[in-house]
Amino acid sequence: MTTWLTNAWYVAGWDAEVDSAPLARTICGVPMLFYRKLDRSVVAMRDACPHRLLPLSLGFREGDSIRCKYHGLKLGPDGAAEEMPIKTDPVNRKVCAQTYVVHERHRFVWVWVGEAEKADPALIPDLWPCSAEGWVFDGGHYPVAADYRLMIDNLMDLTHETYVHDGSIGQQEIVEAPLETQVIGDRAYVRRWMPGIEAPPFWRGALKRDGLVDRWQICEFLLPSAVMIDVGVALVGAGASLESHDQGVRGMVVDFMTPETETTHHYFWGMARNFDLADPGFTARFKRQQGGVFEEDREILEAQQKAIQANPDLKLSAYRIDEGGVRARQIIARAIKAGGQSAEAAA
Amino acid sequence: MTTWLTNAWYVAGWDAEVDSAPLARTICGVPMLFYRKLDRSVVAMRDACPHRLLPLSLGFREGDSIRCKYHGLKLGPDGAAEEMPIKTDPVNRKVCAQTYVVHERHRFVWVWVGEAEKADPALIPDLWPCSAEGWVFDGGHYPVAADYRLMIDNLMDLTHETYVHDGSIGQQEIVEAPLETQVIGDRAYVRRWMPGIEAPPFWRGALKRDGLVDRWQICEFLLPSAVMIDVGVALVGAGASLESHDQGVRGMVVDFMTPETETTHHYFWGMARNFDLADPGFTARFKRQQGGVFEEDREILEAQQKAIQANPDLKLSAYRIDEGGVRARQIIARAIKAGGQSAEAAA
Amino acid sequence: MTTWLTNAWYVAGWDAEVDSAPLARTICGVPMLFYRKLDRSVVAMRDACPHRLLPLSLGFREGDSIRCKYHGLKLGPDGAAEEMPIKTDPVNRKVCAQTYVVHERHRFVWVWVGEAEKADPALIPDLWPCSAEGWVFDGGHYPVAADYRLMIDNLMDLTHETYVHDGSIGQQEIVEAPLETQVIGDRAYVRRWMPGIEAPPFWRGALKRDGLVDRWQICEFLLPSAVMIDVGVALVGAGASLESHDQGVRGMVVDFMTPETETTHHYFWGMARNFDLADPGFTARFKRQQGGVFEEDREILEAQQKAIQANPDLKLSAYRIDEGGVRARQIIARAIKAGGQSAEAAA
Repeated sequence: MTTWLTNAWYVAGWDAEVDSAPLARTICGVPMLFYRKLDRSVVAMRDACPHRLLPLSLGFREGDSIRCKYHGLKLGPDGAAEEMPIKTDPVNRKVCAQTYVVHERHRFVWVWVGEAEKADPALIPDLWPCSAEGWVFDGGHYPVAADYRLMIDNLMDLTHETYVHDGSIGQQEIVEAPLETQVIGDRAYVRRWMPGIEAPPFWRGALKRDGLVDRWQICEFLLPSAVMIDVGVALVGAGASLESHDQGVRGMVVDFMTPETETTHHYFWGMARNFDLADPGFTARFKRQQGGVFEEDREILEAQQKAIQANPDLKLSAYRIDEGGVRARQIIARAIKAGGQSAEAAA
Repeated sequence: MTTWLTNAWYVAGWDAEVDSAPLARTICGVPMLFYRKLDRSVVAMRDACPHRLLPLSLGFREGDSIRCKYHGLKLGPDGAAEEMPIKTDPVNRKVCAQTYVVHERHRFVWVWVGEAEKADPALIPDLWPCSAEGWVFDGGHYPVAADYRLMIDNLMDLTHETYVHDGSIGQQEIVEAPLETQVIGDRAYVRRWMPGIEAPPFWRGALKRDGLVDRWQICEFLLPSAVMIDVGVALVGAGASLESHDQGVRGMVVDFMTPETETTHHYFWGMARNFDLADPGFTARFKRQQGGVFEEDREILEAQQKAIQANPDLKLSAYRIDEGGVRARQIIARAIKAGGQSAEAAA
Repeated sequence: MTTWLTNAWYVAGWDAEVDSAPLARTICGVPMLFYRKLDRSVVAMRDACPHRLLPLSLGFREGDSIRCKYHGLKLGPDGAAEEMPIKTDPVNRKVCAQTYVVHERHRFVWVWVGEAEKADPALIPDLWPCSAEGWVFDGGHYPVAADYRLMIDNLMDLTHETYVHDGSIGQQEIVEAPLETQVIGDRAYVRRWMPGIEAPPFWRGALKRDGLVDRWQICEFLLPSAVMIDVGVALVGAGASLESHDQGVRGMVVDFMTPETETTHHYFWGMARNFDLADPGFTARFKRQQGGVFEEDREILEAQQKAIQANPDLKLSAYRIDEGGVRARQIIARAIKAGGQSAEAAA
């Protein structure tokens, strides 16, 4: 029994990560190899030669195929042998590396680690701001030595910003604003509305207008392991509300947590925005700033993971602020029990 | 079943170690946090926030309380919540970190890891030279990657000095002098009397007199894990004996071994003396010299610990010189079986 | 149940490795100590003092005996106590470190880790080129973090040279030449005959003659864990054959894999040759070149060992080129089942 959903799509990498050399990455406990074919589609294969298990990622690309570095077994992009170690030997077509269903969407390469016949692209979480018109999107990949669910907890509760990020993005209003948690199908939401406040420096710069603002933060959990955070401000009186708020400046923080092992995960983080679109330096500056914020989170999460192991007699508790994370974990557990996501639930 | 006594007092640190920042230290397998309240009394608390287990030692001191770095849960010195992550939320007084009974004595902070109601300060081992008039005392803390009982064995047998410390404090007379082992209640003693010998350089310098001396070494084991070594010399004819020997110069080496895990411990070492009291540099010089001697012991003990694990088919043997260690281990095992020390036994 | 044969001779080290300081080396899971007596014969002893298990390799040599660094217990070369920690104590002759049967042959120190009464020197694998007249022999010792059988697989199949050593000794003819596998008693052979080819640079230099050559590679597995590779070239028409080939230049690569743990081994590699005998620099240059080739193998084997552990659901497959390794593993498994080698089988 794993702590993650197996019949589900996980982010294996950013689209550009598989452009050049084959990428070796362990996804949900499975060592995998990713590379692009000449037609630009992506191959995902068990990163172990079916012959003597050497990682194929150490091997040689030949056209759309990969040749093992040890004895030269050549495998096609379907994983099947194309040439035996001795070239003149007849090819045994039963020799085959496992491949995985891959789909590219929203700037990410997605991989399905469970039963291939259930790999419906409609189940890919709808991270719409990553590929919507009028938005720009970019981000990074960070390895974290902590259970992926600790990052979901972290993201579904933004009160921690006051303490963990006290030197950067923390703000007392966040702790004081009322929050509201809601579950709709397989999605969990945590919403905060902060009307008529001073805009923090970052948002004032983005808005380029003076005056009190309404500010919102809406965290949304999506199966199997995504959190999108809708953040922004609009001038008081512009008509923005929790439900509709394109009157000001708006950013969507997109987070995807891919389990690597039970106690480590790949954290994919990105930011989409609908303002300053023509400023190429904005994203670079924002990623740099976010890098510092992220290091603060990583320190906390990795210390928390170690503490969980050092205090086996203690359990995580849940208070009111944790309701978002609690709901997200319930949705995951329910989906694991059901054997996977259903298209109905995802719709 | 642990290899140590749980209902007992252990040294958590030197008094000065908890003066400034909160001190994180694992005692008998339990991650703990130590800090001083404004009234100078010491708090010992499980080093894991009852909310999400983050080590509280990463948090912020606020008066006598500590606030978690993750979500700002504020705990009083009794471990009970004083403020929830959202300040306006009603405080749930059931939210509580475990605290441990602490007592300061003999320059050390002592912690009781077992059942709190049995934590009688009368059971603290009587390390009298650490706080007696006419004596000065100082020392250090050294982490050692070895079962704490290997250090007890080491200290209850000083023949090893000839080989382990052949370049420093070893002396052939030690191996040749007869030794005598005795158990009185919960204490074990190993005694050596070396009459009419040349004083070694260290003791000649302390005595500041020429002539043959009587020299003694008396190792005393005290529950749960202390060894005091009474060492010194007196001029021949001054009337010193194994039972009474304040005629010359006398030092008390005070050793306390606090288990950290089954295979690591905290070694607290100190030296009390009744001579050269006004020389402030004496202790500093002595600690520096002892640091070198200690490194020789550490190399041996850590190699021994590894060898125990690499040779699972072999067992430690006990010869005549090991009788002190054997008796100490028997006293520990008996106390573990009895569930703790009794005040009678300690008396 | 180990993966190696216990009643067997293993190489513990090169003869010169035990000339000076005592050598500590774990053989088949057992920490051992090796040193030469004054008569130059070699002692092998459990590297753990029978008293408190400290590695004896940290101790002091005294004549043919060894004295423990911790308490000075002195053991003779038969492992029996000669002096107790307190010199005046009567020697307890039951105090004894385990010793192991040792034999020197073929420039190696061999140790028998199983039942001593079965340690027949006639069972030492016949690595004749290491000590034959008209040949010179030298080599090195390399630790490898991989199951020793992965190195046997590697050596019994030289097709991997084309891919692993593509920048050094790889040659396309090797993959294309037919190979023949044979088992005779407890030995497995893989043979390749490449008639009428261009001599590769190394062999052209050794032969010092122009013209097409016949080239051979004969891998021979010997219990418990040796592979000898007979390689060389002779001018076409000189009369060389797979069976008899002293007409040209000939080298014998001698490989011995001694298990350290289930997932690590000591790789002893050497090269014997029957040409350029008077060139003292030849071996040094050859060892340097071989060092580079070996690093390529080590990278592969250690990656393969990790992959075996990271893909517990996958098994090694065997194709036609692996027949030599398969046969060698079968011979090992059969000998383990039979409880050891038999002199009959070795003959």
